Amino acid sequence: MSQVAQLYKYNLDVFSLEKNSEKHFAETFSPFEDMNSTYWLNFHSMENKEAIRKLCDRLCIDKLLQEDLFAEAKRTHLEEYSDYVFFSIISALPKEGSNHYDLKKERISFVIGDNYLISFQEKPSDHFPTVRDRIECKRGKVRYKGPDFLLFRMLEAIIDNYTEVVEEISTNIEKLDKIVLRNPKSEVLRKVEWEKRKLLDLRKIVFPMKELMGQLDRVENEMIIEDNIHYFRELKDTCYSLIDEIESQKQMLDGIANLYYAIQGQRMNEIMKVLTVTSAIFIPLTFIVGVYGMNFEYMPELKSDYGYFIVWGIMILITAFLVFVFWKRGWLKRNN
Amino acid sequence: MSQVAQLYKYNLDVFSLEKNSEKHFAETFSPFEDMNSTYWLNFHSMENKEAIRKLCDRLCIDKLLQEDLFAEAKRTHLEEYSDYVFFSIISALPKEGSNHYDLKKERISFVIGDNYLISFQEKPSDHFPTVRDRIECKRGKVRYKGPDFLLFRMLEAIIDNYTEVVEEISTNIEKLDKIVLRNPKSEVLRKVEWEKRKLLDLRKIVFPMKELMGQLDRVENEMIIEDNIHYFRELKDTCYSLIDEIESQKQMLDGIANLYYAIQGQRMNEIMKVLTVTSAIFIPLTFIVGVYGMNFEYMPELKSDYGYFIVWGIMILITAFLVFVFWKRGWLKRNN
Amino acid sequence: MSQVAQLYKYNLDVFSLEKNSEKHFAETFSPFEDMNSTYWLNFHSMENKEAIRKLCDRLCIDKLLQEDLFAEAKRTHLEEYSDYVFFSIISALPKEGSNHYDLKKERISFVIGDNYLISFQEKPSDHFPTVRDRIECKRGKVRYKGPDFLLFRMLEAIIDNYTEVVEEISTNIEKLDKIVLRNPKSEVLRKVEWEKRKLLDLRKIVFPMKELMGQLDRVENEMIIEDNIHYFRELKDTCYSLIDEIESQKQMLDGIANLYYAIQGQRMNEIMKVLTVTSAIFIPLTFIVGVYGMNFEYMPELKSDYGYFIVWGIMILITAFLVFVFWKRGWLKRNN
Amino acid sequence: MSQVAQLYKYNLDVFSLEKNSEKHFAETFSPFEDMNSTYWLNFHSMENKEAIRKLCDRLCIDKLLQEDLFAEAKRTHLEEYSDYVFFSIISALPKEGSNHYDLKKERISFVIGDNYLISFQEKPSDHFPTVRDRIECKRGKVRYKGPDFLLFRMLEAIIDNYTEVVEEISTNIEKLDKIVLRNPKSEVLRKVEWEKRKLLDLRKIVFPMKELMGQLDRVENEMIIEDNIHYFRELKDTCYSLIDEIESQKQMLDGIANLYYAIQGQRMNEIMKVLTVTSAIFIPLTFIVGVYGMNFEYMPELKSDYGYFIVWGIMILITAFLVFVFWKRGWLKRNN
Amino acid sequence: MSQVAQLYKYNLDVFSLEKNSEKHFAETFSPFEDMNSTYWLNFHSMENKEAIRKLCDRLCIDKLLQEDLFAEAKRTHLEEYSDYVFFSIISALPKEGSNHYDLKKERISFVIGDNYLISFQEKPSDHFPTVRDRIECKRGKVRYKGPDFLLFRMLEAIIDNYTEVVEEISTNIEKLDKIVLRNPKSEVLRKVEWEKRKLLDLRKIVFPMKELMGQLDRVENEMIIEDNIHYFRELKDTCYSLIDEIESQKQMLDGIANLYYAIQGQRMNEIMKVLTVTSAIFIPLTFIVGVYGMNFEYMPELKSDYGYFIVWGIMILITAFLVFVFWKRGWLKRNN
Repeated sequence: MSQVAQLYKYNLDVFSLEKNSEKHFAETFSPFEDMNSTYWLNFHSMENKEAIRKLCDRLCIDKLLQEDLFAEAKRTHLEEYSDYVFFSIISALPKEGSNHYDLKKERISFVIGDNYLISFQEKPSDHFPTVRDRIECKRGKVRYKGPDFLLFRMLEAIIDNYTEVVEEISTNIEKLDKIVLRNPKSEVLRKVEWEKRKLLDLRKIVFPMKELMGQLDRVENEMIIEDNIHYFRELKDTCYSLIDEIESQKQMLDGIANLYYAIQGQRMNEIMKVLTVTSAIFIPLTFIVGVYGMNFEYMPELKSDYGYFIVWGIMILITAFLVFVFWKRGWLKRNN
Repeated sequence: MSQVAQLYKYNLDVFSLEKNSEKHFAETFSPFEDMNSTYWLNFHSMENKEAIRKLCDRLCIDKLLQEDLFAEAKRTHLEEYSDYVFFSIISALPKEGSNHYDLKKERISFVIGDNYLISFQEKPSDHFPTVRDRIECKRGKVRYKGPDFLLFRMLEAIIDNYTEVVEEISTNIEKLDKIVLRNPKSEVLRKVEWEKRKLLDLRKIVFPMKELMGQLDRVENEMIIEDNIHYFRELKDTCYSLIDEIESQKQMLDGIANLYYAIQGQRMNEIMKVLTVTSAIFIPLTFIVGVYGMNFEYMPELKSDYGYFIVWGIMILITAFLVFVFWKRGWLKRNN
Repeated sequence: MSQVAQLYKYNLDVFSLEKNSEKHFAETFSPFEDMNSTYWLNFHSMENKEAIRKLCDRLCIDKLLQEDLFAEAKRTHLEEYSDYVFFSIISALPKEGSNHYDLKKERISFVIGDNYLISFQEKPSDHFPTVRDRIECKRGKVRYKGPDFLLFRMLEAIIDNYTEVVEEISTNIEKLDKIVLRNPKSEVLRKVEWEKRKLLDLRKIVFPMKELMGQLDRVENEMIIEDNIHYFRELKDTCYSLIDEIESQKQMLDGIANLYYAIQGQRMNEIMKVLTVTSAIFIPLTFIVGVYGMNFEYMPELKSDYGYFIVWGIMILITAFLVFVFWKRGWLKRNN
Repeated sequence: MSQVAQLYKYNLDVFSLEKNSEKHFAETFSPFEDMNSTYWLNFHSMENKEAIRKLCDRLCIDKLLQEDLFAEAKRTHLEEYSDYVFFSIISALPKEGSNHYDLKKERISFVIGDNYLISFQEKPSDHFPTVRDRIECKRGKVRYKGPDFLLFRMLEAIIDNYTEVVEEISTNIEKLDKIVLRNPKSEVLRKVEWEKRKLLDLRKIVFPMKELMGQLDRVENEMIIEDNIHYFRELKDTCYSLIDEIESQKQMLDGIANLYYAIQGQRMNEIMKVLTVTSAIFIPLTFIVGVYGMNFEYMPELKSDYGYFIVWGIMILITAFLVFVFWKRGWLKRNN
Repeated sequence: MSQVAQLYKYNLDVFSLEKNSEKHFAETFSPFEDMNSTYWLNFHSMENKEAIRKLCDRLCIDKLLQEDLFAEAKRTHLEEYSDYVFFSIISALPKEGSNHYDLKKERISFVIGDNYLISFQEKPSDHFPTVRDRIECKRGKVRYKGPDFLLFRMLEAIIDNYTEVVEEISTNIEKLDKIVLRNPKSEVLRKVEWEKRKLLDLRKIVFPMKELMGQLDRVENEMIIEDNIHYFRELKDTCYSLIDEIESQKQMLDGIANLYYAIQGQRMNEIMKVLTVTSAIFIPLTFIVGVYGMNFEYMPELKSDYGYFIVWGIMILITAFLVFVFWKRGWLKRNN
């Protein structure tokens, strides 16, 4: 309860980390005291709506945006105000275990001001361990850059998670690729559909993310410094290649489904060939032996001493002929 | 008859509601009397064309628009005049019962002026209970905002109905998803087609709605105040995500159809395997017993004391061999 | 011969209708005599090329356009000159009878000047009875508006014909929808293809029509009065919704085809189940009775008093077992 | 060898035609001598590279363009210089005989200057007989217009060839349409694929042609006179409608393929029904007669005087019952 | 180790080639010493990161770009700075042997300054033998042009490699085209999928390449001289036609897959016909002979002298009738 929010305050020389309740920060957070430090306030839960509303009021954040914060997940969008920028995005992670056809999704909202960044997560999961690490251990450039660079690092972490999802799907596709050749059950097709749904889901998340990066690029106020726009453009490129990757994975899944149908069809063919060859050989033979099983009083062949052997001869000839015909048609070879 | 139209007149302090016939309002509606109040005139039927025409004339509404009001449902469009804005949209609700493949659609037209909003519904159904509630109970901002905010609330209610349709389809998809795995009849595919048609229908409604929100955004006269443009942009975002959702539901339905075909194919495979295994084993055996059912006078095997048992031995060997072959090919396992 | 062209001359007060040969009008048509009247010259045949050329020369119409008039049907396009506008469109009507997979198409060309409109039809069919009616009976606004409004009414009539085609296809789709469920022959699929071809054809006609409406909207000279642009915009909207409708009908036809395949597949399944169940039960039984039909001298079972009844017992047990297995697999139920 | 190039020199009054070797023209061609005449130099082979290079140098044509002239066929493109315009296109003709799935293609390059046009063909085939005819016989406007009009006539001839290809494919589609209903072999599908490849090929040629017409439209120097731009716009329209036609032919071919699959499936259904009906009737009967073919010593039925006729009676009843069942299911009707 | 980098220094008169370690060049490379020469520094490995970083620092290359250099392959992009341009592309070559479904890819980065070009390859493979040759032997224009022309030649070589991949796939498609008609195993479909993946992969590489050419076209600083922009436009055209080619190859592969399905279906049909014809003829006959194999004491036919021959007669009639029926249905012809 008490640790659902953290406040980082840092610049090149100073670093402090405070963990406390949302209520506490709602009452005390005042980034404008020290304009030389960067403040990062991170909430791990959206349940204490009252505290979050209070905080927003203190920072003069638009009422409509406050409603947006608590709204059901919707299309990612960015609102630009004179002294802060607001936007929400959806993070995504693969669910563990192989029987899931959806993703672990979470909506994360950001408010970015001149020297502060507030991030609202819906669940207590942590997407930003590497970012924290960088700040605490003074690694990389994050300590001597402002909140826009911090934002870049956080978005980078989220996009890395998307990449993780894509890679997990890629691994599954390779598995399916092997299974479909060895043992094509309809199970395979179900899994193909599951992976497709994940891709569908992810695409719905990455596409607006890409657009958002473009919007950040064009943000006109001074939240994002000219020098740092490069970083967001990089992220946009990554989103582009993710979308490309998603598209081509979808086509690969289609390819696996097609292979599945082809192999199923071929199995059917094989089964039918066995049935047909067996039937076409033995049904006529059975007829012949049936003929001489008839009880007519006058059947001249039955009296003959060699009748039995002649019938065997005829049957062997017929069989040889049929086997030859089927062999010519290639029906005796497997997989043909 | 007498209650097919209602007139709300309100501002922050004042509120009145009058229910009366269309004819009455056609003769008495005069929003310009009190420019400090917002007037909302709602018609629940389009049948009294004469009264509606009269009303339009009193408000100086273009003749062509009047024709449009009574026209067959067509593409949603917006006409901007100097002192009012006119547009029509289509509302949609799921039909009750599971055997419908279309939607409950209704055309709703709006005329919005400086301080009034007229809404024309085709049927006596009520799409706006929450809106009425908000006005009467003074909940939310509607009482101290003008007709543009009222319009926002009404469009929001309509778009919420679209969402309801999408959710109903989503529930059906989940049901179909389960049915297709348990019991894939062609019935399933018919239902898949029905849901697809609903999506098709809904898309044809939501797409122009989205464009309309964009047009409202760009409306140049003062019907929609700068400050409230935000709201319509939000609705546009919702439309966007609805279209996305529709698209991905369509792909899910395709996925279910594919699964259906795959499972049907697999069932066929299974049936054929049973047929083939049975036939391939017993048809040759039947031939063998047929041979010794022949009535030739000279058949040496028949005289042998052990002939019968030798034949049984041979038949058991053949069966064992064939079973082994089929087992190796995996034809004895189910679902393979 | 003598009535292949008509000339309407009208304004609010005056109305005259002259039916005569093309040659006659080619020599006498002079719209500039009375600038207060609107002239509508309608040709019902393009065969008298000489007369048409003469007429064009008299009205100073570009030679290239004259060639276009007689050219094979090509993409609809509009040419704007300083004192007239020229364009051609394709009209479409459903062919009567159910065995057609194409449309009754006709190219219609228009020359519209300040106070005259000339329409060239290829065949003596009449697309504009309602328009004539409106002029003669002074119904609607056509009598006190210029040639641009007349053009609107004519194009409206043509687009109404497109709608008729769409509705005819829609009726056919509903029929096919019912047939495919009752009695799915490949005949159905052929008809699905026919309807698709009609849609394809119609789309190729409506699409350029829509673009043309947009061009009329932007025409810069004074043939089309600012006030009447509204009308053409309406027609453009209708074209849009027609294209939408065509697209969704195409998808419905795809849905019917899919249903057809699914039902065909299910029928196959059913047939195979009957074959398999029959064969799997009786082929082993036939083998058993075959065994005791053998003529070995020493077969102990044959001597037994109860042998016959024991064999029957065994066969009944086998049958019961197999029936149970097939019942469990659901192969005995129909449509499963 | 000596006649691989021709030079036309003409204006309204003058006309001369010179046939000679490439080398000759490379050394003598000088269009600037007589600015009142139009020069058309046509090469029927690209083999004498040296001569062509020499000619280009004399006309001060860019070295890179010279390389382009001899390059492998690539995307059609246009280069605009101050005193000439260069571009290459691909011509296409159907191959004769029905067993081809590609087109007779040839790259043709044009250099157009103020008063001259040079055309380079790769093969000695002649695409422009009608153009030559028009010049020689003074038919049409070509003699009193400049090289831009000549270019128009030549491009028109090439585009007419495209149309010829489309028409040839259209004829083939109609043939396939009939064959698929009468006699659907997989042969049909192969031919469908062939036609699709031709369409694919043609589309790759027509699409850049269309873009090129758009570029000619926008050419800024004076090679193409304002007055003649109309002509190229016409050609662009033709290209548009060709692309439309190609698209809809592709969809027709898809329709034929679908029909093929449906008919094949129906045939399979029919075959299976014959097999199933025969088997389901005779296999049980064979079992029954097998029972009374057993040799048990004690089988009471065999002793009965009417046993044989009772068995026949039972078998007839069973057969009648099964025939009734199959008749009800509609399996006895053909094509059902 | 020592030869992993080469430095070419040349102008029209001068030429020197130095092969040395990366470390050496990192310390000594100074292109600004002689502004009249063009320097080309080529690295054949990215392993010595320290040396590469050092070199970049000496040339004042942005830190972020340095990170990019070592980053995982991502979307091709170009960064433009005041005194140099940086971009990375992916080269592709077909893998040798027929069992590969991926390409030999390598990321190559370029830094281009006023008079120098640095190229970083990831692997010691050599893509540029023809370029080296041109420089050393003074062939073509490369010696009297700057680094932009050198860049053109290098990109040209890379794009030629793409073309090689496309041609290799084209060859494989032709092979598959033949195999599918002769011997359609599911193997074929797997190979079709492999080729499709290669196309997918290549498209992901060529598409950004094309965009990059467009960006080079618009580069605003003086790295690329106005005169040489032509060359990059040519490359862009080649990329366009490659993308076209990839698209049409994908469609050809779809065509082959369709043919495969059709032929498989036809084979199934054929097999079923053999089974059905055999069964439908012999199963009834076997029933008949079974009838007369019954052991009833009283069966009048058995006593008849001609019974046996009459039965044969009946069976021959039945067979003739059935053969006639099947012949009429065309089931006796192969491939029908």
